[in-house]
Formats: sequence, C-alpha cells, structure tokens
Amino acid sequence: MTPGRRSGVRLGASAERDVLLRRVVAELVGTGFLVAAVVGSGIAAQRFSPHDTGLQLLENSVVTGAVLVALILALQPVSASFNPVITLVERALGRVSTTTAVGLVVAQVVGGLMGVVAANLMFDLPAVNVSTHHRGGAGLLLGEVVATLGLVVVVFGALRSPRIETVAFAVGGYITGAYWFTSSTSFANPAVTVARTLSDTFAGIAPASAPGFVLMQVLGGVLGAGLVLVLHPPSTRTFPSAEEKR
Amino acid sequence: MTPGRRSGVRLGASAERDVLLRRVVAELVGTGFLVAAVVGSGIAAQRFSPHDTGLQLLENSVVTGAVLVALILALQPVSASFNPVITLVERALGRVSTTTAVGLVVAQVVGGLMGVVAANLMFDLPAVNVSTHHRGGAGLLLGEVVATLGLVVVVFGALRSPRIETVAFAVGGYITGAYWFTSSTSFANPAVTVARTLSDTFAGIAPASAPGFVLMQVLGGVLGAGLVLVLHPPSTRTFPSAEEKR
Amino acid sequence: MTPGRRSGVRLGASAERDVLLRRVVAELVGTGFLVAAVVGSGIAAQRFSPHDTGLQLLENSVVTGAVLVALILALQPVSASFNPVITLVERALGRVSTTTAVGLVVAQVVGGLMGVVAANLMFDLPAVNVSTHHRGGAGLLLGEVVATLGLVVVVFGALRSPRIETVAFAVGGYITGAYWFTSSTSFANPAVTVARTLSDTFAGIAPASAPGFVLMQVLGGVLGAGLVLVLHPPSTRTFPSAEEKR
Amino acid sequence: MTPGRRSGVRLGASAERDVLLRRVVAELVGTGFLVAAVVGSGIAAQRFSPHDTGLQLLENSVVTGAVLVALILALQPVSASFNPVITLVERALGRVSTTTAVGLVVAQVVGGLMGVVAANLMFDLPAVNVSTHHRGGAGLLLGEVVATLGLVVVVFGALRSPRIETVAFAVGGYITGAYWFTSSTSFANPAVTVARTLSDTFAGIAPASAPGFVLMQVLGGVLGAGLVLVLHPPSTRTFPSAEEKR
Repeated sequence: MTPGRRSGVRLGASAERDVLLRRVVAELVGTGFLVAAVVGSGIAAQRFSPHDTGLQLLENSVVTGAVLVALILALQPVSASFNPVITLVERALGRVSTTTAVGLVVAQVVGGLMGVVAANLMFDLPAVNVSTHHRGGAGLLLGEVVATLGLVVVVFGALRSPRIETVAFAVGGYITGAYWFTSSTSFANPAVTVARTLSDTFAGIAPASAPGFVLMQVLGGVLGAGLVLVLHPPSTRTFPSAEEKR
Repeated sequence: MTPGRRSGVRLGASAERDVLLRRVVAELVGTGFLVAAVVGSGIAAQRFSPHDTGLQLLENSVVTGAVLVALILALQPVSASFNPVITLVERALGRVSTTTAVGLVVAQVVGGLMGVVAANLMFDLPAVNVSTHHRGGAGLLLGEVVATLGLVVVVFGALRSPRIETVAFAVGGYITGAYWFTSSTSFANPAVTVARTLSDTFAGIAPASAPGFVLMQVLGGVLGAGLVLVLHPPSTRTFPSAEEKR
Repeated sequence: MTPGRRSGVRLGASAERDVLLRRVVAELVGTGFLVAAVVGSGIAAQRFSPHDTGLQLLENSVVTGAVLVALILALQPVSASFNPVITLVERALGRVSTTTAVGLVVAQVVGGLMGVVAANLMFDLPAVNVSTHHRGGAGLLLGEVVATLGLVVVVFGALRSPRIETVAFAVGGYITGAYWFTSSTSFANPAVTVARTLSDTFAGIAPASAPGFVLMQVLGGVLGAGLVLVLHPPSTRTFPSAEEKR
Repeated sequence: MTPGRRSGVRLGASAERDVLLRRVVAELVGTGFLVAAVVGSGIAAQRFSPHDTGLQLLENSVVTGAVLVALILALQPVSASFNPVITLVERALGRVSTTTAVGLVVAQVVGGLMGVVAANLMFDLPAVNVSTHHRGGAGLLLGEVVATLGLVVVVFGALRSPRIETVAFAVGGYITGAYWFTSSTSFANPAVTVARTLSDTFAGIAPASAPGFVLMQVLGGVLGAGLVLVLHPPSTRTFPSAEEKR
C-alpha cells in the first residue's frame, strides 16, 4: 500500500535504513491507533449503550471504519498496512523485501499491544486485563476466513484504481460492514487479534481462542491472494505505489 | 462501469477470453459479498437489536452502503455491476457485447446464491432456508420501480463525472438511502432478489413475491434508461471506462 | 455547480435549448428524489423507530446526506442545485442567465411536489395529505437563517476546491449535520419546504409555517452570498465548471 | 492546510492584508460552525434521545465528523485549521508567519465563542450559560494527549497525500472515532474547549476543567509534531499547499 522498492531510484544503505525506520514507525503508530479505536470504542459502547448489543456493535463498527479511513489516508505516504496478512501478501507479490516485511510485522504486533494498553489506561482499567471472552465454533471460524479473504481482495483491488486514496475508503467501508456480515465480527488481522487478548471488554478475545482465529485469517489471506492473481492480469499486478501515482 | 470493448486496442481471441473470465470472476465475487453483506448483516441486526426495527434497518442499510463502496472501488478495474439491470442497460447502451452481458448476468446470479449460502453458514443456519417473508402491495411494487429507476440514473450519471471512483460513493450513498425512502427497502437488483429467497431471516423474501419484484425492477430499469438518454447528450453517452480515465 | 454559459463555446439557439432542457430535467429528477428521500425516510423512521425521536432523526439525517451525495455526484455533469436559494446566488454571481435560473427554480418546485407525492404513494398514504406540523418561534427561525447561510458558504467554497466532486461530500456532510445543530432541523431550501407541506408525517410542515421558513432561508442566502464575496477574491469567484475541471 | 507564503508569488502589502483578512474570516466562520455543530447537536441529542447516552454520543460524533468534512472542503481554499494546536504546529513547521498565526488563533477563539452563543440561541437557551460539567482524572487527561497527538499526525500526514481534499475525510473520520476511543470524548482543540465552557449542556465543560484539558492538548500537539518530524523526511515536510496541488 506504500512506496515499494520498485521506485527506480537507487538509495544508499543509509537512506534505505531511514525509509525502513519511517515505515516501522508508521506501522507502529497506525496499528496502535487502530487497536486503541477498536478496544476503546468497544469499552465506551458497552458503558454508554448497555441496553442493546446491536447499538454497541454499530458504534464500534462505525468508529473502526472512520478511524481506518483517517489512518490510511494519513500514513499511506509512509506505510499503512497495519495487518500482518496484508504485509505477507505484499511480500508474496514482491512489493516489499523480506527484511521490510519482518520489520513491519513486528511493528504491527508491538503497536497493537501499545494500543490496547493505551485504551485500557484511558478508560481507567488495568493496563493489561486478559480477556475471558471465548470465541469459536464452525460459523465464527468460517467468518474469519471470509472476512480476511474479502479484505485481501478489497485492498489489492483498490490499489489498482486510478487514485491510491481509494484504498482508505474501500478498507474503511469493508471493515465497517464485515463487523456485521461475518459472525465473528471480522477480526481479520493477527496483530489486532493478539492485542485484543489483553482487554477483558466488549472487543476482547480469550487467549485460547486467538490461535484458531489467526489460523483462519492466514487461510483467508492465502485464498484471497489466489483470487487477486486470478482477477488481475500480471501486467497490472505490480500495483503502482503512492509516489508513482502523484 | 468497467473497461469495455471500445478500448481501441484489438485483443486476440485468447486475450479476450481472459478478460471475460476475469470479469465473470469479479461479478461472482462482488455479487457474492454484496448478498452476504445484505443477508448477514440482516441476521446480525435481528439478533443484536431485537427491540427496534428501525435500528435493525439502520444497521442493515449502513452496512450495505459501506460494503458497496468497498466492492465497487476494489472491483471496478475489472468489473463491478453486480446487478443484471445495470448490465442490461450497459448492453442497451452498447458498452458491452451480448456474450459478455450473458456471462456477467449468470455470474451475478450464481455469485448471489453463493453469498446467501455463505451468510447462512456463517451464522450457523442451514445453508438454504427458504424465506416465508411475503412482500407485495401497490406501494411496495411502486417502491421497486422508483428504486431501480433512481439507481440507473445514479450509476450512469456518476459514470460521466470526471473521476470514475465517484460511482462507488454515489451507489453506496444511494442504496443506503433507498433502503429507507422506498417502502420496499429497495431490493432494486434481480440477482440479489433471487438470492434473498433462500434465507428465512430479516432480509429474506418469499419465492412467491420475487417475480413481482423482479418485474418492477426491469420496468424501473427501462424507465431509468430512458431518463439517461434524455439527460445525457449522445456525445457524452459513451461513458469513458476506467482505463481511459487514468 | 454545473456548466455555465462561460464555456467559451458559442452554442446555436437549438443546442442552447437542448442544454436548458437537460438541466431542467436534472433539477426535476434531483429535487424529486431529494424530497422523496427526506419525506420517505421520515415516514419509515417514524414507523420503525417509534420509541426514540433522536433515532428517527439520525435515520432521517443520515439518509438525506447519503442521497445528496449520490444525486449531486450523478447529476452534477448536467445540473445539481436542487435549491432555489443556490440557483439565485448562482444568478447573482453571474454563473447562470435569468432564463436558466427561472427554468431551474420552476423545475425544483415541480420536482419537489412530485417527490412528496411519490413518497406518500410508496408508503400507501393519500397522494397529498396536508401537514398539520406547526414549526416556528425565534430559535427555529434563527436556525433557518444559520442553516441556509452555512449551506451557501459550503457550496460555493467547495466549488473552488481542486476537484468538483467535493461539492457532493461537502453538501451531504453539511446537511446531515445541520439537521441536528439547527433547532429547525435545517430545511434550508424553499422548494423542499413547499413540498413538505404536503405530507402530514415526521418531515412535514404546516402550510402556515412555510412562509416564515422561506423568508428566513432567503435572508440566510443573502447573508451567505455576502460571506462568499468576502471569502473569495474576485479572481477566483468565477468558480470553474465541471467541464473546465476535467 | 492552506496557501502559505511559500507560493513564490510576491504580494504587495495591501494584497497580503487582503489574504490575511480572508483567512481570518474563514477561521472565524469555520470554527464558529464547528462549535455550533458540536454544542447544537449535543443539545438536540440530549433532548431527542434521553434514554441512551451512547446513542447521544453516536449522534453527536457523526454530526461533528460530517460537518468537519463539509467545513474543511469548503474553506480549505482559504484557511481551514479551526484549531490553535494545528496553527501552532503549522507555525513551527514554517508554513505560516507569526503574524498570520496570531490572527488565525484569535479568529478561532472568537469564532468558537460566536458558535456557542448561536447554538444556545437556536435552542432557546440563554446566550451564555456557564457549564457545570466537571471533566478530569488521569484517564481523561491521558485521553486528551492521545487525541491531540493523533489529530496532528492525521492532519500533517494527509497533507502529504497526492490530493489535498483527503485532509477533510481524514479529520472527519478521525474525530468521529476519537469521540469514542478516548475517554475524554476528544476535545483536542483549545478554541473549542474554551467555547464549550459557555453551554451547560451535553457538550459543555466546566471552566475549572478547561485549563487541564488545554494543557494536555498542547502536550499532545508537541508530541504529535515530534512524530511528524520522524515520519516525514525533510524533503517532503514542506507540505504542498492547495494552490500548488491544482
């Protein structure tokens, strides 16, 4: 979703380190705010709308979509994946190097953990409170596969559109919807899933339920990547970067 | 809404087959996710907001609009009609060949059926459960005519705007609204109507009610196409494709 | 908001008549759907969310904003004012001729009346049922002045932005908000106000209350036009048309 | 966020005064409508949705985000910061002169006060009614730091994107979300905070609580500016103005 190494400009080793550092910071900040938005709005929804679970989910899903639009628009000029599945598909498509991919995924996981701690503290909860919210069953696991498959199709399809900022609106709209149309409320993101184990609130997930979710997300990611290869001919599959679309 | 055969580049027979195949896959995936969003969010809304039908419809309509924005942005570079009425109007305007139109419509119907099955399974319901929700009466049938007429005006008007991604926001906004301002909650899509007969939930429609809805949609489509011819002078009526707007 | 006579291309009398005819049809269709959206979603909100007036207003305002985005994006290449106050300010700024302005305003009023009749019929109400909902008082009248003043500033400010489709999002966002932050729920449109006298439902207004509302809207329009002259230097005040921004 | 002095065109003293005057008017009008939207929709939400605080906050946050999209799109061609923290960061980055910054901040504070008075009057309340709503505690103060830090990252990140109108959608989405994911409901703006002391309603804040909020906002602004320097290399940090992106 961001400037890749295909930019044609050869950078020195020090400049390359600078670019990677900035990308790591962007993924850290972006995933941190994303998780803070998911968990924080979940806590607020639970407190302020105690009578209707649907209203809580509406609040939670609208907030998550709106914040995704903001974060992707703002960090896309640097790096805006916020999701290990997306980064792994970018690696598989040759858009990022292995070193970069590892750096981004670590940043996403660490950023997510920082985000959940920030949300807990802002709402005067212990910094870490492990979730006891068990999530599982065939329907929910299928939900995670469908949710992640769709996310991959949406991200890499929108990247082919004439203007790169469409990715922000496509992802924001998709996730707002996927909270509702998948029975799992669409975690669709391993870094966010790990972080959500550390909040025993509306948006939490028990640690024992997390591995199943992550596995289904990886499976959905693989199926989604396959669909991307079918949908987009090789000549278009390089996906122009933000810089090249200016 | 997508690259047509007017692109000036003559493709070999094999390349043409490839393009059609990708378009069929895009319509299959897109209509599938659209129906999954409509039906899935309807099930979730009914379960989570049991006390207020209006809140259920708000959740259902916001989700459908948000997912339409995502799907159109993501699949427009390939094919993003998701609706036999739109495809037929595109055929009438000479934007697609008869072969392509037939392929797309079949893909839309099959995709819709896959979408409703996926939604049912995700929410732990039988894969197919025929709807018993009868919908009809003069007001509702008028609603379908108005809804589809408006959709055609919105799609082909937005295609004339300077930037092709406006179609996504125009359709998403229109459908979110049409759920509310038409008494039929604006099915406005024969493929989606057929699929919705297979879910006995909030978004379902009894098979006996479907033919009347589809007939009114076709009527609305014809009236809408007439308005498009009046509104847009012949010189602009060719509607540039995504490729040509880059 | 639309191609004006400054296009530099001299049209013959017959071609000019064609352009005006298309603009009249666009304003008729656009204002018709706008009023149908306002009144129809008001009826649906009242029926489906009987327990909370705020929820009804949320439904009504989100629908109106979403439909405005769709209609402006779709009809802007032809004509998309839908509001006599906007058309009069366009006339004052020299963007349209007097003949055109008269044609557009008549189309807006007639279109609005068609829209309210359509909404009533879709919801199985008498085609015309005069509203008994009295609206007035100092706060509400001030609300209409503020609402219309803000609308004029938003429309003509957005027209100066680099891309013309921003007008759709600016107006949709503004009206969704103005339903809430003005005590009058922001009619801000004489054609819509007249039409809303013909529906004795959530969105209706008693005929006796309409003249006061329209007067305040005209006053707000004049004040807004004054602010536009202060905010935008003469060199930018010609506002490029859709054609010229391509 | 607006044409700065780097435009390369040397203006005479009188033309420079004209530019500054227009910017001051834009900040006055924009911040006025922003505060009217925050306070007015808060009053309406409290009156119309008395049974669910969450629904009130949903109404209040969606309206604020929608109005921000409208105001930024409409006033960006002139001046659209509406927030002393943003203006101070613009000064620190060399995007505006000290004279301009002082003028804009004064306009923001005065505009905010005009906005709260307008909201009170529209809803038939005394023009000024001092808030008794005390807000404080470690969680809330942390919330203001996080909210303002994020706002600065979002504004200056979006300014680097290929199209300047992304700022409007980024800020609107961010603020809608931040109402929910920060425990303080994200004031994140000293001018708005001061204005909100003058309405004893849903959106009000007691004068005694305001200094702590403003202090945390300034701290968040400083931290956010630091992040901007890390995220964006010096060569991109000049942020093109609206004019230069045309």
